[in-house]
Amino acid sequence: MAKRVGVVGGMGPAATVEFLSRLVRATPATRDQDHLHVLMDSDPAIPSRAEAILRGGPSPAPRLCEIARGLERAGAQVLAMPCNTAHAFLEAMRAAVTIRILDMLDETAARVATDPVGLLSTEAAVRAELYQRACAPRGIRVIVPRPEGQVEVTRLIAAVKAGEPLGALRHRLGRVAEQLERDGARALVIGCTEISLLHDEGSPLPALDALDCLVEATLREARSEER
Amino acid sequence: MAKRVGVVGGMGPAATVEFLSRLVRATPATRDQDHLHVLMDSDPAIPSRAEAILRGGPSPAPRLCEIARGLERAGAQVLAMPCNTAHAFLEAMRAAVTIRILDMLDETAARVATDPVGLLSTEAAVRAELYQRACAPRGIRVIVPRPEGQVEVTRLIAAVKAGEPLGALRHRLGRVAEQLERDGARALVIGCTEISLLHDEGSPLPALDALDCLVEATLREARSEER
Repeated sequence: MAKRVGVVGGMGPAATVEFLSRLVRATPATRDQDHLHVLMDSDPAIPSRAEAILRGGPSPAPRLCEIARGLERAGAQVLAMPCNTAHAFLEAMRAAVTIRILDMLDETAARVATDPVGLLSTEAAVRAELYQRACAPRGIRVIVPRPEGQVEVTRLIAAVKAGEPLGALRHRLGRVAEQLERDGARALVIGCTEISLLHDEGSPLPALDALDCLVEATLREARSEER
Repeated sequence: MAKRVGVVGGMGPAATVEFLSRLVRATPATRDQDHLHVLMDSDPAIPSRAEAILRGGPSPAPRLCEIARGLERAGAQVLAMPCNTAHAFLEAMRAAVTIRILDMLDETAARVATDPVGLLSTEAAVRAELYQRACAPRGIRVIVPRPEGQVEVTRLIAAVKAGEPLGALRHRLGRVAEQLERDGARALVIGCTEISLLHDEGSPLPALDALDCLVEATLREARSEER
């Protein structure tokens, strides 16, 4: 029997739903009973990860630990957190529960097949060097956008969270990707779940989406023998 | 501050995700913090509602009550259950918790503006007369599919749960709707969340989707003053 999956969500809410949707579609199933049992706590009021990392705002760690503990108490046997930037607080969360919390960044870095990769993520994730640290032990170099490109990515993430139509935003994301290519990237890592909602197949470079990597890892872990 | 919403899910998992997705899209929000706090328990192993109602199989009521209690314990302040047929067990669930459980069928019946309406729902919902009883006090007659039409709807629901491509299925659903129109229906009630996934704007009759009615009711209730 598969493990019950807990989802630490709300960062943002649409990205959490996209994770659940991809998880359902990726599960081999012909009837309800073939799917995973999933518990979700989608709390959109978790303190801003960006504010905490970039400007010393209130840490989201206490609330993230509370949510993780709540999901464990409710019966979750493995946790997934579909927010790349929140992984800056993963160690604190791991200390708060006895169940495994999947590491979206490590799962993604393990699937990178090209070097170097261009990173599309929040400024906070770039500054905290989350992907650089996940990729370095594997000998993969990470190319981040130039300052004006990163500003544009930050704007795009906010626009996705605000529910703006994705069409025009996609075009703008494409231009950041093109600059990453000119700067040497041979593939892209989609390292922000709002960019996962935005990115499409029209990209000039092959892309590895961290949200898909987390879906795969969740399925693998939930269906593994160890309970 | 809005109430925390608990979602009794997994019936089926894709319909639960569709509910969450519509709820996010229907919420007026420009940033994460404007969204609702949502707790979900999506348990696809809840005993079959259809088996219990049609063939005396094990009742899902005990498990539904457990899930409702678990969500209340986890902090939910109002519950929504995006599965029409499961509402046959609503009274038992209401006795199990102190918080309000929204009635998807009543919310839908309250929004029906045309008489009579054609019903697209599970055979179990038809036999248990769930919509007939929700509509009767409002003077609205419910027209159900002919036996062969209902068999077709049952097949379509199973096909959606099996993840079959929706294109061809939509055409088949259209034919059931056309027969309902010939039988006198002047509008449709989409009274099964798998049909909500399937139904599109190409229908010959105006349609009221119970899933949308539940989304509206959830937003209204979560943002109401009473806590």
